Amino acid sequence: MKVACIQTSPVFGAIKKNVDDAVKKISRIDADLVVLPELFSTGYQFRDKKEALSYGEDVRTGYASTMLAGLAKKKKMHIVAGINERAGKKVYNSAVLVGPNGLCGLYRKGHLFWNEKKIFSPGDTELNVYDIGKAKIGLMVCFDWIFPEVARTLALRGADILCQPSNLVLPYCPQAMITRSIENRVYSIVANRVGTEERIKGSRLDFIGQSEVVAPDGEVLWRAGGKRTASKVVDIDPRLARNKSINPLNNLFKDRREDLFAL
Amino acid sequence: MKVACIQTSPVFGAIKKNVDDAVKKISRIDADLVVLPELFSTGYQFRDKKEALSYGEDVRTGYASTMLAGLAKKKKMHIVAGINERAGKKVYNSAVLVGPNGLCGLYRKGHLFWNEKKIFSPGDTELNVYDIGKAKIGLMVCFDWIFPEVARTLALRGADILCQPSNLVLPYCPQAMITRSIENRVYSIVANRVGTEERIKGSRLDFIGQSEVVAPDGEVLWRAGGKRTASKVVDIDPRLARNKSINPLNNLFKDRREDLFAL
Repeated sequence: MKVACIQTSPVFGAIKKNVDDAVKKISRIDADLVVLPELFSTGYQFRDKKEALSYGEDVRTGYASTMLAGLAKKKKMHIVAGINERAGKKVYNSAVLVGPNGLCGLYRKGHLFWNEKKIFSPGDTELNVYDIGKAKIGLMVCFDWIFPEVARTLALRGADILCQPSNLVLPYCPQAMITRSIENRVYSIVANRVGTEERIKGSRLDFIGQSEVVAPDGEVLWRAGGKRTASKVVDIDPRLARNKSINPLNNLFKDRREDLFAL
Repeated sequence: MKVACIQTSPVFGAIKKNVDDAVKKISRIDADLVVLPELFSTGYQFRDKKEALSYGEDVRTGYASTMLAGLAKKKKMHIVAGINERAGKKVYNSAVLVGPNGLCGLYRKGHLFWNEKKIFSPGDTELNVYDIGKAKIGLMVCFDWIFPEVARTLALRGADILCQPSNLVLPYCPQAMITRSIENRVYSIVANRVGTEERIKGSRLDFIGQSEVVAPDGEVLWRAGGKRTASKVVDIDPRLARNKSINPLNNLFKDRREDLFAL
């Protein structure tokens, strides 16, 4: 199975340009699954909720979703992408999953980071796992990484691959996702962005890039740099993520001493 | 508060020598809390349960515990140490906590690694948190690290410091404990050993050292090398571990979307 991780540098508010750039890039890629960054179509730093609403898109009819769905159909692939979702009077920081049959998955970010709390509504979707044929995938978004329960829940529900659209500014996540892969014995695809935004004076955000694909044993199969756009197709074997045994006597799921945990 | 992390190189079966060496080292240290490695008094690779039983010690009357308790009383400190605990016909891979008033904590390793399952009984103690005056500490042992629920449970129960006696042979734990510190906003003290054991032919174990003290923000305050014994006293402020806010809007404990988790 081929998975692709794409690191972008969106121009704030330029939805058409950002989406068209991504579509052009993916058109040249041969992969079963592609992961794009968080809020890849709009950029990140909305000044307030009103502005976010004005750039918001319906997950079925919006430009980003429909363009990606069309591409997914044409290329017979699945695509995970972070978008600024408008749903009535609410905006969600969402990850959509589109495939040959259109929209087939939606996750609204459960753990909002800092000022996102002033803009987005907290996610009201479950941590669902989606069967895309060659693998089962789980969706999480950026700051969800710091809560080990998110990756754990997705893995316990059968995810072979954690797909994590991100807009990282803190340095910790790329390393921590290695731990997430090891402790859950799953692949992780972190699609992050690069570039800078300072639409709110004094709140400059430098996105760290370092998108990556991590194997169930923690091996970093690919990691991008921190400054430039990048993309990579990696061959993976999802079956490796279904075997939770790390030696003849230890199975990471069966060994869990749930009787000791207080969560 | 001063915490000490001690990296040893025990001689298999030489309980008196191993304990006396540790006592001598700790005698020269000025600290409130000292952490020693897993099975520090006996060494690691028992050939079978019978052999482990023959080297086993009662946690109250054994040589390791009584020597450390005497030292803790004299130095007005607390010491965490991994010992091979005999309890009736069972042996546990245990961590003891001794203080000025003697034995005050016991954790029997819940997640046994590989051949340990043939030797030790799985732990039957809770993941308790102990108030040692200047801080609250949680005990975990080595392979427990790979289960995020262990550190999480201890942190949710109020631990400021994770004390982890270890005998690491795989390379992942020192990096993963940085993630454990970050996600729980706690200190971690990993006391590992160095040296080699091959008491079972073909099962050579090379212990990786790299003992460390990690701050709640993930900073590695100290990390030992992989080849030699080492010890370090580090000044820490346990109050930093009680503030789970990483910015004005995100509190790592209050933000947990328990409604989304399936654990």
